[in-house]
Amino acid sequence: MTQMTKMTKAEVESFLAKEFPQIAIGEEFVLEDVGHLSARLRLVASEKHLRPGGTVSGPSMFALADVCLYIAILAQIGPVALAVTTNLNINFLRRPSPGDLVADCRLLKLGNRLAVGEVFLHSAGDEEPVAHATGTYSIPPRPG
Amino acid sequence: MTQMTKMTKAEVESFLAKEFPQIAIGEEFVLEDVGHLSARLRLVASEKHLRPGGTVSGPSMFALADVCLYIAILAQIGPVALAVTTNLNINFLRRPSPGDLVADCRLLKLGNRLAVGEVFLHSAGDEEPVAHATGTYSIPPRPG
Amino acid sequence: MTQMTKMTKAEVESFLAKEFPQIAIGEEFVLEDVGHLSARLRLVASEKHLRPGGTVSGPSMFALADVCLYIAILAQIGPVALAVTTNLNINFLRRPSPGDLVADCRLLKLGNRLAVGEVFLHSAGDEEPVAHATGTYSIPPRPG
Amino acid sequence: MTQMTKMTKAEVESFLAKEFPQIAIGEEFVLEDVGHLSARLRLVASEKHLRPGGTVSGPSMFALADVCLYIAILAQIGPVALAVTTNLNINFLRRPSPGDLVADCRLLKLGNRLAVGEVFLHSAGDEEPVAHATGTYSIPPRPG
Repeated sequence: MTQMTKMTKAEVESFLAKEFPQIAIGEEFVLEDVGHLSARLRLVASEKHLRPGGTVSGPSMFALADVCLYIAILAQIGPVALAVTTNLNINFLRRPSPGDLVADCRLLKLGNRLAVGEVFLHSAGDEEPVAHATGTYSIPPRPG
Repeated sequence: MTQMTKMTKAEVESFLAKEFPQIAIGEEFVLEDVGHLSARLRLVASEKHLRPGGTVSGPSMFALADVCLYIAILAQIGPVALAVTTNLNINFLRRPSPGDLVADCRLLKLGNRLAVGEVFLHSAGDEEPVAHATGTYSIPPRPG
Repeated sequence: MTQMTKMTKAEVESFLAKEFPQIAIGEEFVLEDVGHLSARLRLVASEKHLRPGGTVSGPSMFALADVCLYIAILAQIGPVALAVTTNLNINFLRRPSPGDLVADCRLLKLGNRLAVGEVFLHSAGDEEPVAHATGTYSIPPRPG
Repeated sequence: MTQMTKMTKAEVESFLAKEFPQIAIGEEFVLEDVGHLSARLRLVASEKHLRPGGTVSGPSMFALADVCLYIAILAQIGPVALAVTTNLNINFLRRPSPGDLVADCRLLKLGNRLAVGEVFLHSAGDEEPVAHATGTYSIPPRPG
Protein backbone atom coordinates (compact mmCIF):
# COMPACT_ATOMS: atom_id res chain seq x y z
CA MET A 1 0.00 0.00 0.00
CA THR A 2 1.44 3.32 -1.04
CA GLN A 3 0.41 6.42 0.80
CA MET A 4 0.55 9.45 -1.39
CA THR A 5 0.71 13.14 -0.78
CA LYS A 6 -1.86 15.40 -2.43
CA MET A 7 0.87 17.57 -3.92
CA THR A 8 4.18 16.60 -5.43
CA LYS A 9 7.39 18.45 -4.71
CA ALA A 10 7.02 20.36 -8.00
CA GLU A 11 3.42 21.29 -7.22
CA VAL A 12 4.39 22.59 -3.78
CA GLU A 13 7.16 24.64 -5.36
CA SER A 14 4.90 26.27 -7.89
CA PHE A 15 2.19 26.92 -5.33
CA LEU A 16 4.68 28.65 -3.04
CA ALA A 17 6.30 30.63 -5.86
CA LYS A 18 2.89 31.99 -6.81
CA GLU A 19 1.20 32.44 -3.42
CA PHE A 20 4.12 33.09 -1.07
CA PRO A 21 6.82 34.93 -2.99
CA GLN A 22 8.29 36.08 0.35
CA ILE A 23 9.31 32.46 1.07
CA ALA A 24 11.63 32.63 -1.98
CA ILE A 25 11.34 28.95 -2.75
CA GLY A 26 14.27 27.74 -4.85
CA GLU A 27 16.44 30.60 -3.61
CA GLU A 28 16.46 31.19 0.15
CA PHE A 29 14.65 27.90 0.78
CA VAL A 30 15.26 24.80 -1.34
CA LEU A 31 12.70 22.02 -1.08
CA GLU A 32 14.53 18.71 -1.04
CA ASP A 33 11.65 16.31 -0.58
CA VAL A 34 8.03 15.87 0.38
CA GLY A 35 6.58 12.52 1.44
CA HIS A 36 3.87 10.88 3.46
CA LEU A 37 3.55 13.13 6.54
CA SER A 38 7.02 14.56 5.94
CA ALA A 39 9.08 17.23 4.23
CA ARG A 40 12.76 18.16 3.96
CA LEU A 41 13.78 21.77 3.38
CA ARG A 42 17.17 23.47 3.11
CA LEU A 43 18.01 27.01 4.14
CA VAL A 44 20.64 28.44 1.83
CA ALA A 45 22.67 30.46 4.30
CA SER A 46 23.52 33.99 3.25
CA GLU A 47 24.66 37.13 5.01
CA LYS A 48 21.24 38.04 6.38
CA HIS A 49 20.86 34.73 8.25
CA LEU A 50 24.15 34.86 10.04
CA ARG A 51 25.29 36.07 13.38
CA PRO A 52 28.91 36.75 14.37
CA GLY A 53 30.93 33.59 13.80
CA GLY A 54 29.12 32.79 10.57
CA THR A 55 26.43 30.54 11.99
CA VAL A 56 22.73 30.78 11.26
CA SER A 57 20.72 32.90 13.74
CA GLY A 58 17.88 31.73 15.99
CA PRO A 59 15.16 33.58 14.06
CA SER A 60 16.41 32.03 10.81
CA MET A 61 16.19 28.58 12.42
CA PHE A 62 12.69 29.40 13.60
CA ALA A 63 11.72 30.43 10.08
CA LEU A 64 13.19 27.27 8.57
CA ALA A 65 11.32 25.03 11.04
CA ASP A 66 8.06 26.92 10.56
CA VAL A 67 8.20 26.87 6.74
CA CYS A 68 9.16 23.18 6.68
CA LEU A 69 6.20 22.32 8.89
CA TYR A 70 3.91 24.39 6.70
CA ILE A 71 5.13 22.59 3.59
CA ALA A 72 4.67 19.14 5.15
CA ILE A 73 1.04 20.02 5.90
CA LEU A 74 0.43 21.63 2.52
CA ALA A 75 1.72 18.56 0.69
CA GLN A 76 -0.76 16.35 2.55
CA ILE A 77 -3.88 18.48 2.39
CA GLY A 78 -3.42 20.21 -0.95
CA PRO A 79 -3.46 23.83 -2.04
CA VAL A 80 -6.92 24.66 -0.79
CA ALA A 81 -6.40 25.76 2.74
CA LEU A 82 -4.78 28.64 4.56
CA ALA A 83 -3.16 27.11 7.60
CA VAL A 84 -1.62 29.31 10.30
CA THR A 85 0.90 28.57 13.03
CA THR A 86 -0.67 28.68 16.47
CA ASN A 87 2.25 27.40 18.57
CA LEU A 88 5.90 26.71 18.03
CA ASN A 89 8.32 25.46 20.66
CA ILE A 90 12.00 25.31 19.77
CA ASN A 91 14.99 23.95 21.67
CA PHE A 92 18.42 25.12 20.57
CA LEU A 93 20.82 22.24 21.13
CA ARG A 94 24.22 23.22 19.82
CA ARG A 95 25.82 25.86 17.64
CA PRO A 96 25.46 24.94 13.96
CA SER A 97 28.44 24.73 11.63
CA PRO A 98 28.80 27.65 9.25
CA GLY A 99 26.76 27.07 6.10
CA ASP A 100 23.37 25.70 5.08
CA LEU A 101 20.88 24.15 7.48
CA VAL A 102 18.50 21.31 6.67
CA ALA A 103 15.11 20.73 8.30
CA ASP A 104 13.39 17.36 8.51
CA CYS A 105 9.73 17.52 9.43
CA ARG A 106 7.49 14.65 10.42
CA LEU A 107 3.82 15.21 11.14
CA LEU A 108 2.63 13.63 14.39
CA LYS A 109 -1.02 14.42 13.87
CA LEU A 110 -3.01 15.58 10.88
CA GLY A 111 -6.50 16.25 12.14
CA ASN A 112 -9.40 18.15 10.65
CA ARG A 113 -8.64 21.25 12.62
CA LEU A 114 -5.09 20.91 13.94
CA ALA A 115 -1.85 19.51 12.60
CA VAL A 116 1.14 18.89 14.87
CA GLY A 117 4.65 18.12 13.71
CA GLU A 118 8.22 17.94 14.85
CA VAL A 119 11.21 19.32 13.00
CA PHE A 120 14.87 18.44 13.41
CA LEU A 121 17.38 21.01 12.16
CA HIS A 122 20.94 20.03 11.35
CA SER A 123 23.87 21.45 9.44
CA ALA A 124 24.12 20.16 5.88
CA GLY A 125 26.25 17.02 5.89
CA ASP A 126 26.05 16.53 9.65
CA GLU A 127 23.46 14.27 11.27
CA GLU A 128 23.58 15.73 14.75
CA PRO A 129 20.64 18.05 15.40
CA VAL A 130 21.34 21.71 16.16
CA ALA A 131 17.74 22.46 17.08
CA HIS A 132 14.43 20.67 17.50
CA ALA A 133 11.00 22.23 17.16
CA THR A 134 7.42 21.11 17.63
CA GLY A 135 4.63 23.17 16.19
CA THR A 136 0.89 23.31 15.71
CA TYR A 137 -0.98 24.67 12.73
CA SER A 138 -4.66 25.51 12.72
CA ILE A 139 -6.36 24.27 9.55
CA PRO A 140 -9.45 26.04 8.27
CA PRO A 141 -12.59 24.04 7.50
CA ARG A 142 -12.21 22.07 4.29
CA PRO A 143 -14.82 20.70 1.93
CA GLY A 144 -15.36 16.95 2.20
CA MET B 1 32.50 0.93 19.00
CA THR B 2 29.97 0.31 21.72
CA GLN B 3 28.51 3.21 23.61
CA MET B 4 27.54 2.25 27.08
CA THR B 5 25.34 3.75 29.71
CA LYS B 6 26.77 4.41 33.16
CA MET B 7 23.96 2.48 34.82
CA THR B 8 22.24 -0.71 33.74
CA LYS B 9 18.48 -1.17 33.89
CA ALA B 10 18.86 -3.04 37.20
CA GLU B 11 21.05 -0.32 38.67
CA VAL B 12 18.55 2.35 37.71
CA GLU B 13 15.77 0.32 39.30
CA SER B 14 17.58 -0.08 42.58
CA PHE B 15 18.64 3.56 42.66
CA LEU B 16 15.04 4.69 42.15
CA ALA B 17 13.63 2.21 44.66
CA LYS B 18 15.98 3.58 47.28
CA GLU B 19 16.07 7.30 46.46
CA PHE B 20 12.66 7.93 44.91
CA PRO B 21 10.13 5.59 46.53
CA GLN B 22 7.33 7.88 45.33
CA ILE B 23 8.11 6.84 41.72
CA ALA B 24 7.11 3.26 42.68
CA ILE B 25 9.42 1.64 40.16
CA GLY B 26 8.32 -1.88 39.33
CA GLU B 27 4.74 -1.11 40.36
CA GLU B 28 3.26 2.09 38.94
CA PHE B 29 6.16 2.51 36.52
CA VAL B 30 7.89 -0.45 34.90
CA LEU B 31 11.28 0.18 33.32
CA GLU B 32 11.46 -1.73 30.06
CA ASP B 33 14.85 -0.64 28.78
CA VAL B 34 17.69 1.82 29.06
CA GLY B 35 20.20 2.37 26.29
CA HIS B 36 22.59 4.88 24.78
CA LEU B 37 20.76 8.22 25.15
CA SER B 38 17.43 6.41 25.54
CA ALA B 39 14.94 4.82 27.92
CA ARG B 40 11.61 3.04 27.66
CA LEU B 41 9.15 3.16 30.55
CA ARG B 42 5.64 1.74 31.00
CA LEU B 43 2.86 3.25 33.08
CA VAL B 44 0.74 0.50 34.58
CA ALA B 45 -2.69 2.10 34.36
CA SER B 46 -4.82 1.91 37.47
CA GLU B 47 -7.85 3.74 38.76
CA LYS B 48 -5.96 6.83 39.89
CA HIS B 49 -4.57 7.51 36.40
CA LEU B 50 -7.86 7.37 34.58
CA ARG B 51 -10.44 9.88 33.54
CA PRO B 52 -13.99 9.09 32.46
CA GLY B 53 -13.89 6.63 29.57
CA GLY B 54 -11.02 4.67 31.10
CA THR B 55 -8.15 6.45 29.39
CA VAL B 56 -5.06 7.80 31.10
CA SER B 57 -5.27 11.46 32.19
CA GLY B 58 -3.10 14.34 31.03
CA PRO B 59 -1.22 14.72 34.32
CA SER B 60 -0.44 10.99 34.31
CA MET B 61 0.97 11.35 30.79
CA PHE B 62 3.01 14.32 31.94
CA ALA B 63 4.37 12.25 34.85
CA LEU B 64 5.24 9.33 32.57
CA ALA B 65 7.11 11.58 30.12
CA ASP B 66 8.93 13.41 32.89
CA VAL B 67 10.05 10.25 34.72
CA CYS B 68 11.14 8.59 31.47
CA LEU B 69 13.27 11.60 30.59
CA TYR B 70 14.76 11.61 34.07
CA ILE B 71 15.66 7.93 33.79
CA ALA B 72 17.26 8.37 30.37
CA ILE B 73 19.52 11.07 31.82
CA LEU B 74 20.26 9.14 35.00
CA ALA B 75 21.33 6.07 33.03
CA GLN B 76 23.86 8.15 31.07
CA ILE B 77 25.36 10.25 33.86
CA GLY B 78 25.16 7.83 36.77
CA PRO B 79 23.71 8.08 40.26
CA VAL B 80 25.70 11.11 41.36
CA ALA B 81 23.59 14.02 40.34
CA LEU B 82 20.29 15.55 41.28
CA ALA B 83 18.80 16.72 38.02
CA VAL B 84 15.61 18.80 37.99
CA THR B 85 13.11 19.52 35.23
CA THR B 86 13.26 23.12 34.08
CA ASN B 87 10.89 22.96 31.10
CA LEU B 88 8.46 20.48 29.67
CA ASN B 89 6.31 20.99 26.60
CA ILE B 90 3.69 18.39 25.77
CA ASN B 91 1.38 18.01 22.79
CA PHE B 92 -1.65 15.76 23.22
CA LEU B 93 -2.30 14.13 19.87
CA ARG B 94 -5.14 11.66 20.25
CA ARG B 95 -7.07 9.91 22.98
CA PRO B 96 -5.19 6.83 24.19
CA SER B 97 -6.74 3.38 24.25
CA PRO B 98 -7.74 2.17 27.70
CA GLY B 99 -4.83 0.46 29.43
CA ASP B 100 -1.10 0.93 29.90
CA LEU B 101 0.95 3.63 28.21
CA VAL B 102 4.54 3.30 27.06
CA ALA B 103 7.07 6.15 26.84
CA ASP B 104 10.07 6.16 24.54
CA CYS B 105 12.66 8.78 25.34
CA ARG B 106 15.59 9.84 23.23
CA LEU B 107 18.07 12.44 24.46
CA LEU B 108 18.80 15.17 21.93
CA LYS B 109 21.50 16.84 23.97
CA LEU B 110 23.46 15.78 27.01
CA GLY B 111 25.55 18.75 28.00
CA ASN B 112 27.39 19.60 31.17
CA ARG B 113 24.60 21.74 32.49
CA LEU B 114 21.51 20.92 30.44
CA ALA B 115 20.01 17.78 28.98
CA VAL B 116 17.20 17.92 26.40
CA GLY B 117 15.12 14.99 25.27
CA GLU B 118 12.00 14.06 23.44
CA VAL B 119 9.45 11.48 24.56
CA PHE B 120 6.81 9.70 22.51
CA LEU B 121 3.89 8.21 24.42
CA HIS B 122 1.76 5.47 22.92
CA SER B 123 -0.74 2.89 24.11
CA ALA B 124 0.83 -0.51 24.78
CA GLY B 125 0.69 -2.53 21.58
CA ASP B 126 -0.08 0.45 19.35
CA GLU B 127 2.64 2.38 17.52
CA GLU B 128 0.72 5.58 16.94
CA PRO B 129 1.74 8.29 19.40
CA VAL B 130 -0.92 9.68 21.76
CA ALA B 131 1.32 12.46 23.04
CA HIS B 132 4.77 13.92 22.41
CA ALA B 133 6.86 15.84 24.90
CA THR B 134 10.16 17.68 24.87
CA GLY B 135 11.82 18.54 28.12
CA THR B 136 14.92 20.08 29.64
CA TYR B 137 16.68 19.02 32.82
CA SER B 138 19.23 21.13 34.62
CA ILE B 139 22.20 19.04 35.74
CA PRO B 140 24.19 20.12 38.78
CA PRO B 141 27.97 20.49 38.52
CA ARG B 142 29.68 17.09 38.43
CA PRO B 143 33.19 16.12 39.35
CA GLY B 144 35.48 15.47 36.42
CA MET C 1 -19.61 48.01 30.99
CA THR C 2 -19.40 44.85 33.03
CA GLN C 3 -18.09 41.71 31.44
CA MET C 4 -19.58 38.64 32.96
CA THR C 5 -18.70 35.01 32.98
CA LYS C 6 -21.30 32.49 31.81
CA MET C 7 -20.91 30.47 35.01
CA THR C 8 -20.45 31.63 38.57
CA LYS C 9 -17.98 30.04 40.94
CA ALA C 10 -20.78 27.98 42.50
CA GLU C 11 -21.99 26.83 39.08
CA VAL C 12 -18.50 25.75 38.08
CA GLU C 13 -18.16 23.84 41.34
CA SER C 14 -21.39 21.94 40.88
CA PHE C 15 -20.66 21.20 37.24
CA LEU C 16 -17.25 19.76 38.16
CA ALA C 17 -18.59 17.79 41.11
CA LYS C 18 -21.13 16.13 38.83
CA GLU C 19 -19.18 15.73 35.59
CA PHE C 20 -15.58 15.39 36.78
CA PRO C 21 -15.56 13.67 40.17
CA GLN C 22 -11.90 12.77 39.63
CA ILE C 23 -11.02 16.50 39.94
CA ALA C 24 -12.32 16.37 43.55
CA ILE C 25 -13.39 19.99 43.61
CA GLY C 26 -13.65 21.31 47.14
CA GLU C 27 -11.22 18.69 48.41
CA GLU C 28 -8.02 18.27 46.39
CA PHE C 29 -8.71 21.43 44.40
CA VAL C 30 -10.40 24.46 45.94
CA LEU C 31 -11.78 27.05 43.54
CA GLU C 32 -11.01 30.48 44.92
CA ASP C 33 -12.37 32.68 42.16
CA VAL C 34 -13.57 32.89 38.59
CA GLY C 35 -13.72 36.15 36.68
CA HIS C 36 -13.60 37.67 33.23
CA LEU C 37 -11.03 35.54 31.38
CA SER C 38 -9.57 34.35 34.66
CA ALA C 39 -9.67 31.77 37.44
CA ARG C 40 -7.82 31.11 40.69
CA LEU C 41 -7.48 27.58 42.01
CA ARG C 42 -5.75 26.13 45.07
CA LEU C 43 -4.15 22.71 45.35
CA VAL C 44 -4.55 21.37 48.87
CA ALA C 45 -1.23 19.61 49.31
CA SER C 46 -1.38 16.11 50.72
CA GLU C 47 0.96 13.15 50.83
CA LYS C 48 0.29 12.04 47.26
CA HIS C 49 1.41 15.39 45.78
CA LEU C 50 4.71 15.57 47.57
CA ARG C 51 8.23 14.59 46.73
CA PRO C 52 11.07 14.24 49.23
CA GLY C 53 11.46 17.50 51.11
CA GLY C 54 7.71 18.02 51.35
CA THR C 55 7.25 20.15 48.24
CA VAL C 56 4.65 19.59 45.55
CA SER C 57 5.80 17.44 42.62
CA GLY C 58 6.05 18.47 38.96
CA PRO C 59 3.10 16.35 37.81
CA SER C 60 0.93 17.86 40.57
CA MET C 61 1.91 21.33 39.36
CA PHE C 62 1.07 20.30 35.82
CA ALA C 63 -2.35 19.06 36.99
CA LEU C 64 -3.04 22.27 38.91
CA ALA C 65 -2.16 24.46 35.91
CA ASP C 66 -4.18 22.31 33.53
CA VAL C 67 -7.32 22.21 35.70
CA CYS C 68 -7.12 25.95 36.39
CA LEU C 69 -6.94 26.69 32.67
CA TYR C 70 -9.87 24.35 32.04
CA ILE C 71 -11.95 26.12 34.69
CA ALA C 72 -11.13 29.57 33.32
CA ILE C 73 -12.40 28.46 29.90
CA LEU C 74 -15.45 26.68 31.30
CA ALA C 75 -16.50 29.76 33.25
CA GLN C 76 -16.45 31.85 30.07
CA ILE C 77 -18.13 29.49 27.62
CA GLY C 78 -20.55 27.67 29.91
CA PRO C 79 -21.21 24.01 30.62
CA VAL C 80 -21.98 22.98 27.07
CA ALA C 81 -18.64 22.06 25.64
CA LEU C 82 -16.03 19.40 26.12
CA ALA C 83 -12.72 21.16 25.76
CA VAL C 84 -9.47 19.19 25.67
CA THR C 85 -5.88 20.23 26.25
CA THR C 86 -3.84 20.15 23.06
CA ASN C 87 -0.60 21.71 24.31
CA LEU C 88 0.88 22.66 27.63
CA ASN C 89 4.29 24.20 28.18
CA ILE C 90 5.55 24.59 31.73
CA ASN C 91 8.66 26.24 33.14
CA PHE C 92 9.69 25.29 36.66
CA LEU C 93 11.24 28.36 38.23
CA ARG C 94 12.07 27.59 41.85
CA ARG C 95 11.30 24.99 44.47
CA PRO C 96 7.96 25.71 46.14
CA SER C 97 7.61 26.06 49.90
CA PRO C 98 6.01 23.08 51.59
CA GLY C 99 2.22 23.37 51.60
CA ASP C 100 -0.56 24.43 49.26
CA LEU C 101 -0.03 25.90 45.82
CA VAL C 102 -2.21 28.52 44.15
CA ALA C 103 -2.72 28.91 40.39
CA ASP C 104 -3.73 32.15 38.71
CA CYS C 105 -4.93 31.75 35.15
CA ARG C 106 -5.52 34.47 32.62
CA LEU C 107 -6.87 33.68 29.17
CA LEU C 108 -4.91 35.30 26.35
CA LYS C 109 -7.26 34.21 23.60
CA LEU C 110 -10.76 32.79 23.62
CA GLY C 111 -11.54 31.91 20.03
CA ASN C 112 -14.21 29.75 18.48
CA ARG C 113 -11.92 26.77 18.19
CA LEU C 114 -8.93 27.45 20.43
CA ALA C 115 -8.40 29.03 23.81
CA VAL C 116 -4.93 29.97 25.05
CA GLY C 117 -4.05 30.94 28.58
CA GLU C 118 -1.18 31.45 30.94
CA VAL C 119 -1.01 30.22 34.52
CA PHE C 120 1.25 31.38 37.32
CA LEU C 121 1.76 28.97 40.21
CA HIS C 122 2.95 30.17 43.59
CA SER C 123 3.05 28.89 47.14
CA ALA C 124 0.10 30.04 49.23
CA GLY C 125 1.02 33.33 50.88
CA ASP C 126 4.02 33.98 48.65
CA GLU C 127 3.80 36.10 45.51
CA GLU C 128 6.89 34.78 43.77
CA PRO C 129 6.02 32.29 41.04
CA VAL C 130 7.32 28.72 41.37
CA ALA C 131 6.19 27.74 37.88
CA HIS C 132 4.61 29.29 34.80
CA ALA C 133 2.58 27.47 32.19
CA THR C 134 0.96 28.34 28.89
CA GLY C 135 -1.61 26.02 27.42
CA THR C 136 -4.03 25.59 24.56
CA TYR C 137 -7.44 23.95 24.67
CA SER C 138 -9.37 22.86 21.63
CA ILE C 139 -13.03 23.83 21.90
CA PRO C 140 -15.65 21.78 20.08
CA PRO C 141 -18.13 23.50 17.79
CA ARG C 142 -20.78 25.35 19.78
CA PRO C 143 -24.27 26.40 18.83
CA GLY C 144 -24.66 30.11 18.17
CA MET D 1 13.95 50.61 48.10
CA THR D 2 14.84 51.08 44.48
CA GLN D 3 15.98 48.11 42.48
CA MET D 4 18.33 49.08 39.74
CA THR D 5 19.46 47.49 36.56
CA LYS D 6 23.19 47.08 35.93
CA MET D 7 22.92 48.85 32.58
CA THR D 8 20.85 51.86 31.61
CA LYS D 9 18.91 52.03 28.36
CA ALA D 10 21.73 54.07 26.80
CA GLU D 11 24.36 51.58 27.94
CA VAL D 12 22.39 48.68 26.48
CA GLU D 13 22.06 50.57 23.21
CA SER D 14 25.76 51.23 22.91
CA PHE D 15 26.68 47.69 23.90
CA LEU D 16 24.38 46.28 21.22
CA ALA D 17 25.53 48.75 18.57
CA LYS D 18 29.12 47.67 19.16
CA GLU D 19 28.74 43.94 19.82
CA PHE D 20 25.65 42.98 17.84
CA PRO D 21 25.47 45.21 14.77
CA GLN D 22 23.12 42.66 13.17
CA ILE D 23 20.44 43.61 15.72
CA ALA D 24 20.43 47.13 14.25
CA ILE D 25 19.45 48.81 17.47
CA GLY D 26 17.90 52.22 16.86
CA GLU D 27 16.87 51.21 13.36
CA GLU D 28 15.12 47.85 13.01
CA PHE D 29 14.71 47.54 16.79
CA VAL D 30 14.06 50.57 18.99
CA LEU D 31 14.61 50.12 22.71
CA GLU D 32 11.83 51.90 24.56
CA ASP D 33 12.68 51.02 28.13
CA VAL D 34 14.65 48.80 30.46
CA GLY D 35 13.72 48.32 34.10
CA HIS D 36 13.93 45.96 37.02
CA LEU D 37 13.51 42.49 35.42
CA SER D 38 11.90 44.05 32.35
CA ALA D 39 12.42 45.56 28.92
CA ARG D 40 10.27 47.07 26.20
CA LEU D 41 11.36 46.89 22.56
CA ARG D 42 9.74 48.04 19.32
CA LEU D 43 10.09 46.42 15.92
CA VAL D 44 9.99 49.06 13.22
CA ALA D 45 8.06 47.19 10.53
CA SER D 46 9.51 47.35 7.05
CA GLU D 47 9.09 45.36 3.87
CA LYS D 48 11.28 42.46 4.97
CA HIS D 49 9.16 41.73 8.07
CA LEU D 50 5.85 41.58 6.29
CA ARG D 51 3.76 38.86 4.81
CA PRO D 52 0.88 39.37 2.38
CA GLY D 53 -1.67 41.69 3.97
CA GLY D 54 1.02 43.91 5.46
CA THR D 55 1.29 42.26 8.85
CA VAL D 56 4.49 41.21 10.56
CA SER D 57 5.57 37.60 9.93
CA GLY D 58 5.97 34.84 12.52
CA PRO D 59 9.78 34.73 12.29
CA SER D 60 9.92 38.51 12.81
CA MET D 61 7.74 38.11 15.91
CA PHE D 62 10.04 35.36 17.12
CA ALA D 63 13.07 37.62 16.59
CA LEU D 64 11.41 40.51 18.44
CA ALA D 65 10.54 38.31 21.43
CA ASP D 66 13.98 36.74 21.52
CA VAL D 67 15.88 40.05 21.32
CA CYS D 68 13.63 41.65 23.95
CA LEU D 69 14.27 38.78 26.35
CA TYR D 70 17.99 39.01 25.68
CA ILE D 71 17.97 42.74 26.43
CA ALA D 72 16.01 42.29 29.66
CA ILE D 73 18.65 39.83 30.86
CA LEU D 74 21.56 41.93 29.66
CA ALA D 75 20.27 44.99 31.51
CA GLN D 76 20.15 43.03 34.78
CA ILE D 77 23.46 41.17 34.59
CA GLY D 78 25.61 43.69 32.75
CA PRO D 79 27.77 43.47 29.64
CA VAL D 80 30.01 40.66 30.81
CA ALA D 81 28.22 37.54 29.74
CA LEU D 82 27.34 35.79 26.54
CA ALA D 83 23.87 34.39 27.12
CA VAL D 84 22.27 32.08 24.55
CA THR D 85 18.65 31.06 23.98
CA THR D 86 18.04 27.43 24.88
CA ASN D 87 14.26 27.29 24.52
CA LEU D 88 11.55 29.53 23.15
CA ASN D 89 7.86 28.72 23.07
CA ILE D 90 5.54 31.09 21.22
CA ASN D 91 1.76 31.18 20.89
CA PHE D 92 0.33 33.21 18.05
CA LEU D 93 -2.96 34.66 19.26
CA ARG D 94 -4.34 36.93 16.57
CA ARG D 95 -3.25 38.65 13.40
CA PRO D 96 -1.44 41.90 14.19
CA SER D 97 -2.50 45.21 12.70
CA PRO D 98 -0.23 46.49 9.93
CA GLY D 99 2.67 48.48 11.37
CA ASP D 100 5.11 48.31 14.24
CA LEU D 101 5.01 45.70 16.99
CA VAL D 102 5.97 46.26 20.62
CA ALA D 103 7.35 43.58 22.96
CA ASP D 104 7.06 43.72 26.74
CA CYS D 105 9.33 41.31 28.56
CA ARG D 106 9.23 40.40 32.22
CA LEU D 107 11.80 38.05 33.71
CA LEU D 108 10.27 35.27 35.83
CA LYS D 109 13.58 33.91 37.04
CA LEU D 110 17.11 35.25 36.98
CA GLY D 111 19.30 32.47 38.30
CA ASN D 112 23.02 31.91 38.16
CA ARG D 113 22.75 29.59 35.19
CA LEU D 114 19.31 30.11 33.68
CA ALA D 115 17.03 33.05 33.11
CA VAL D 116 13.37 32.61 32.17
CA GLY D 117 11.07 35.32 30.92
CA GLU D 118 7.77 35.94 29.25
CA VAL D 119 7.14 38.37 26.42
CA PHE D 120 3.86 39.85 25.25
CA LEU D 121 3.77 41.20 21.71
CA HIS D 122 1.17 43.71 20.62
CA SER D 123 0.62 46.14 17.79
CA ALA D 124 1.77 49.67 18.60
CA GLY D 125 -1.15 51.56 20.14
CA ASP D 126 -3.19 48.43 20.83
CA GLU D 127 -3.11 46.65 24.18
CA GLU D 128 -4.41 43.29 23.02
CA PRO D 129 -1.60 40.76 22.65
CA VAL D 130 -0.95 39.28 19.20
CA ALA D 131 1.54 36.71 20.50
CA HIS D 132 2.98 35.50 23.78
CA ALA D 133 6.34 33.84 24.25
CA THR D 134 8.25 32.26 27.10
CA GLY D 135 11.94 31.65 26.76
CA THR D 136 15.00 30.42 28.58
CA TYR D 137 18.53 31.72 28.27
CA SER D 138 21.59 29.90 29.50
CA ILE D 139 23.97 32.25 31.29
CA PRO D 140 27.69 31.46 31.35
CA PRO D 141 29.55 31.38 34.65
CA ARG D 142 30.15 34.89 35.97
CA PRO D 143 32.74 36.18 38.36
CA GLY D 144 31.34 36.77 41.88
